[in-house]
Amino acid sequence: MHENLITPTPSAYTYPLLVKHLLTNAQCLHGEQEITYRGALRYSYRTFRERIGRLASALSALAVQHGSTVAVMDWDSHRYLECYFGVPTMGATLFTVNVRLSAQQILYTLNDACAEVVLVHADFVPLLEEIWAELTSVRHVVVLADNAPMPHTTLPVAGEYEALLAHASPDFLFADFEERTRAATFYTTGTTGDPKGVSYSHRDIVLHAMATATTLCAPRDGQRLHREDVYMPITPMFHVLAWGMPYIAVMLGLKIVLPGRYAADLLLKLHDTERVTFSHCVPTLLQMLLQAAEGGMHDLSGWKVLIGGSALSPALCEAALDRGIDVFAGYGMSETGPVVALAQLPPGRKPADLQEEIRMRCATGRPVPLAELRIVDEHLRDVPHDGKHQGEIVLRTPYLTQGYFNKPEASEELWAGGYLHTQDIAVMTPDGFVQIVDRIKDVIKTGGEWVSSIEVESLIAQVPGVQESAVIGVRDAKWGERPMAFVVSKPGARLKAEAIRDSLLAHADAKRISKYAVPELDRIAFVAEIPKTSVGKINKKVLRENAA
Amino acid sequence: MHENLITPTPSAYTYPLLVKHLLTNAQCLHGEQEITYRGALRYSYRTFRERIGRLASALSALAVQHGSTVAVMDWDSHRYLECYFGVPTMGATLFTVNVRLSAQQILYTLNDACAEVVLVHADFVPLLEEIWAELTSVRHVVVLADNAPMPHTTLPVAGEYEALLAHASPDFLFADFEERTRAATFYTTGTTGDPKGVSYSHRDIVLHAMATATTLCAPRDGQRLHREDVYMPITPMFHVLAWGMPYIAVMLGLKIVLPGRYAADLLLKLHDTERVTFSHCVPTLLQMLLQAAEGGMHDLSGWKVLIGGSALSPALCEAALDRGIDVFAGYGMSETGPVVALAQLPPGRKPADLQEEIRMRCATGRPVPLAELRIVDEHLRDVPHDGKHQGEIVLRTPYLTQGYFNKPEASEELWAGGYLHTQDIAVMTPDGFVQIVDRIKDVIKTGGEWVSSIEVESLIAQVPGVQESAVIGVRDAKWGERPMAFVVSKPGARLKAEAIRDSLLAHADAKRISKYAVPELDRIAFVAEIPKTSVGKINKKVLRENAA
Repeated sequence: MHENLITPTPSAYTYPLLVKHLLTNAQCLHGEQEITYRGALRYSYRTFRERIGRLASALSALAVQHGSTVAVMDWDSHRYLECYFGVPTMGATLFTVNVRLSAQQILYTLNDACAEVVLVHADFVPLLEEIWAELTSVRHVVVLADNAPMPHTTLPVAGEYEALLAHASPDFLFADFEERTRAATFYTTGTTGDPKGVSYSHRDIVLHAMATATTLCAPRDGQRLHREDVYMPITPMFHVLAWGMPYIAVMLGLKIVLPGRYAADLLLKLHDTERVTFSHCVPTLLQMLLQAAEGGMHDLSGWKVLIGGSALSPALCEAALDRGIDVFAGYGMSETGPVVALAQLPPGRKPADLQEEIRMRCATGRPVPLAELRIVDEHLRDVPHDGKHQGEIVLRTPYLTQGYFNKPEASEELWAGGYLHTQDIAVMTPDGFVQIVDRIKDVIKTGGEWVSSIEVESLIAQVPGVQESAVIGVRDAKWGERPMAFVVSKPGARLKAEAIRDSLLAHADAKRISKYAVPELDRIAFVAEIPKTSVGKINKKVLRENAA
Repeated sequence: MHENLITPTPSAYTYPLLVKHLLTNAQCLHGEQEITYRGALRYSYRTFRERIGRLASALSALAVQHGSTVAVMDWDSHRYLECYFGVPTMGATLFTVNVRLSAQQILYTLNDACAEVVLVHADFVPLLEEIWAELTSVRHVVVLADNAPMPHTTLPVAGEYEALLAHASPDFLFADFEERTRAATFYTTGTTGDPKGVSYSHRDIVLHAMATATTLCAPRDGQRLHREDVYMPITPMFHVLAWGMPYIAVMLGLKIVLPGRYAADLLLKLHDTERVTFSHCVPTLLQMLLQAAEGGMHDLSGWKVLIGGSALSPALCEAALDRGIDVFAGYGMSETGPVVALAQLPPGRKPADLQEEIRMRCATGRPVPLAELRIVDEHLRDVPHDGKHQGEIVLRTPYLTQGYFNKPEASEELWAGGYLHTQDIAVMTPDGFVQIVDRIKDVIKTGGEWVSSIEVESLIAQVPGVQESAVIGVRDAKWGERPMAFVVSKPGARLKAEAIRDSLLAHADAKRISKYAVPELDRIAFVAEIPKTSVGKINKKVLRENAA
C-alpha cells in the first residue's frame, strides 16, 4: 500500500479555495451588473471589484495584515458587501458584530475576538463610545458616515470610510494563502453563558457557496435560484454571513439590492422598483412584510423567499402563498455554515393538495450535496427512516464550524463522537426528507410522553384570531412538566383561552396530537408580544424565566 | 502576522472532498431513482449503492488496496458507472482504458499506469490476449460477459463480474483518506509521441462536479440541467471521465441511461423510450444522430445536448436547432477536468436573431465559477478584451491536471509560468465571452497573416452539398503556408471546387475572412471521409502527413 497522492509539477498552480476566487468572474463576466444600496446609490460589479481593492489598501494603511481581525458594525449596505470580500481576501478575519446585542455583550465579543479595527456606522458610534474604555485590542476606528456629516465623537477616528477609499489605490495585490485560513468570525448567543465565537475558513465559505448554489439552482420549476434573479437579503449581514447568500449572489453575478435598515415600506418599495425576485429572512420579517402589504398595491407574486432562523409555520406559509410568494424553508444553524438542507418540492412528485404543498414547503427538507445528515439516538445509532421515530440531527458537511473560540468544552460537546450535534429532534421519511419536531431543550416531557412545542404552536396558529404563539414546558408537581402557551391576538380579535383549548382538544380527538399536549385553561396566557432574540427567534429562555 | 489557520476541535470531523461523498444522498434521497443499461437492465440507486459495496469487496479479495490501479475496458454500462465510484472510493485508482487505441498503445498505457487488475468486456478479450505476454503489472483479469456466456480465453481469469459481485458482501467500509489521493487516470493522445497519462484526485473530481453543476443549473430557461432531467451520456466513459457528467448526475440524483455501444438507432430508441432530456457528445455523433433521425418519427425537441471535443459548427448547430434540439458547446480538454466554460446564452440578453443565437451556442462560452480563464500573449500578458485581439487561453481552476505521468518536460511545458496552457487561440469580448479561433498548431501562417482553419471550415460547411470539411496549412514556397481544404460531399451532391472557392471569395469580399484564407482551386480536394482520432476529432496530423 502506498499513499497514492498526486504530486504536482513544480510550476503547477495548486489552487487554494479562497474567497477571492468567488470574485474571479464577477468583474469579467458581469462587469456591468448592478449593486444598489437602498435604490439611492448604484454601481457596477466593476466598481465593486475596484472598491474591494481600495478597501484592502486603506485597511493595509491602518496596519491590518494577514491574521488581523476587522470588526464591522453596519446596516446591510454595499459597504458590508465590500467587507465580506475585501477583509478575508487580504488574509484578515471579518468579524460581523451583532449590533442587537447589549453593549456589554458587544464589548465581550470585540475583546474575545481580538478586533484590531472597527468599521462603525454613525448610528452605533454612541454604543462604541460607551464601551471604548474597556476595549483591549482595538487600535483604529473607521466611521461609516453613510452620506451624512461625520458625527461628533470622542473616539480616535482614523477616517471616514468613503474618504479612506477615495484616497486608497484600487490595485491591491491579493496574495494566495492556505485555504483553511480563518476568513470570518461571529458570535452565537446560546441560552446560557457568554456568546460563543464561531469561525469559518475560506474553504468553508467557498464550499458552502458551491453546495448551496447547486441545490438552490437544481429544481425544475419554482423555488429555484437562477442567473437572472435579483437578490435582496432581508437577514442582517451580521447574522451567519447572511446565510452565505451574498457569496452565492456574487459568484453567480446576480443583481444585488442592499436595503439598509429593515423598514417594511422601504423593503416593499425596493422589491417593486428594483424587481427583486429572491430574498431570505426569518418568519417574523415575512409576517411583517405581509401585514405591511395588506390592502396595498404590491404585487408579490413570484417572489422567492427562503425562510430560516425559526420554523416556517403552515399558517404563515399559506398566507405567503396567498400573495403569490414562492416561500420555502431552509435548515441550518450558526455552527453549520449554515445551510445544510432546503425544503424544495421533491423532484417528480407534485403535491396532492395545498395542505401537502404547505407541509413540504415548511419541512426541514432535503440535504444539500455532500451533506451527511443523520437522525440518531443517544448512542449515535440511526433511527428508522419511517417518518415516526425521532432522534437528534447530527451532521458532517465540508463546511461545519470546527469549534468555538476559547471554549474547548462546548466545542467537544458540539462534536461528540465526530458528528456535529444540532440539538434538533427530527424524523426522516423513507425518501430522505427531514422534518424537525423540536429543539432538544424545548421538547416538553409530560407524564412520560414527549410533546413537541413547535407542533402545538403551529396548531394554535391555525385558530382564527391568533397572530402568534409560543409554547414552553413549565414545572408541574404531578406530571413533571406541562405545556404552557403564550398567545398574541390579532388586532381587534377577541380571543378566549377556551377557543384555543377546544381547538387543540379537537386535534387530539383526531389523533393529530397527544391529549397530553393540550395545555390547561390557566396555562394559556394572552400577551401583547412574544419576546424575541437579537436575530428574531422566539426567546423561550425569557419565557421560561417569566413563567418561573 | 500569524498564520490564522482554524484549529479543529479534537473530535471534529475534518471533511475531505472524496468521491464517496457524491454518493452521500444518492441512496437516501434518490433510493428509488432508476439507472438503466440499454433499457434492458434496470435497477435503483439503492441497488447501485449496494453493488458499489460488492464491487469493492470483490476487488479487495483480488488484493486491490489503497494505491492499486484498476483498469476498465468496457462499453458505456452500469458496470462502468459502478467502477467510477467503487474503485476510487476504496482508495484505488480507476484507469479508463481508451479501447479505440491500437493494441500497442493500449499495452503501453497499461504498463505505464501499472495496472494491477483489468476488468475487460468479452469484446476486448482478444485484444488483451494479443498483448498479454508483454504486460508487466497486471495480476488479475475480470471478464464482463455482459449477459452472454463466458468467452473462451487463454487469459488467467479471476472470475466473471456478475458472479464476483453476487458472492461479495455489499457492506464494504469505505474509509476516509487524503483528498489529493489519485482517483482516476487516463491517457491523452497528442499529435506526437506516446500517449500521456493524466490523473485527477478525489478533490479534483468533487470540485469539478460542483463548479460544473452550478453553471449547468444556473440559467433561467433553456440549456440548463435540472433535477428532473434524464441523463444519457453519448461520450465514451473512457474519455475524460465522460466529462465528469456521471458524477454530476449521481450527485443530483438524476435518472441515468447507459447506452452500451453507440449505434444511432439504439441511441434514438433509448432517447424516445427512456425520455432522455440531457446528453453530451462530439459533433460527429450529433451529425450521425441527425442523419439517422432524418425522415423518421423521432421527436427530438427539448433534448439538451452539450457538445465538446471539437468545435460545434454553425451549420450543425442550425441543423440541430431545426429538429428542436437545445444544443450548446462546452469547452475543456483532457488536462482541464475537463469543463471550464459553457456556451450558455448570456443572462438577460436575448439573441437578436437566429444567426446571433447560433453564434452564441457555438461559442466557447463563459467560464464556470472559480475558473480563471485568461487570453494572453507569449509573455503571459492579457490581450485586450475587444473581441479582436487573439491570444492563447491559459487557465487556473481548482481541478486542473497537475502534470503528466512520467513526463516531467511535457508537464513543465503544460504549466509554464504557473498557468495551464491550452494551446487554443481565442479572443474575448468585453463582456467576458470567449471564442476560440484555432489551435496554436492549426493556425495557418500565410504571407505574414494568421488564418484560422476553423473559420474557413465553418464557412465551407455552409456551401450547399457539403457534409464536412477540414482545413490545414501546407508548405508553400512563396507564402510560407497556404490553406488546403478537404471536403466530403453529401451523398448525391455534385460539388465542384469552383463553388467552394467562389463562396469563400464572396465571404472575403464581405470582409468576413481575409482573402489570404481562400485556398486555390488545386488546394480544394474532395475525399470520401475525413480521418478522425480515437475520440472523434478531425485528425489533422494524418491530413498533414497525407498532404506532405
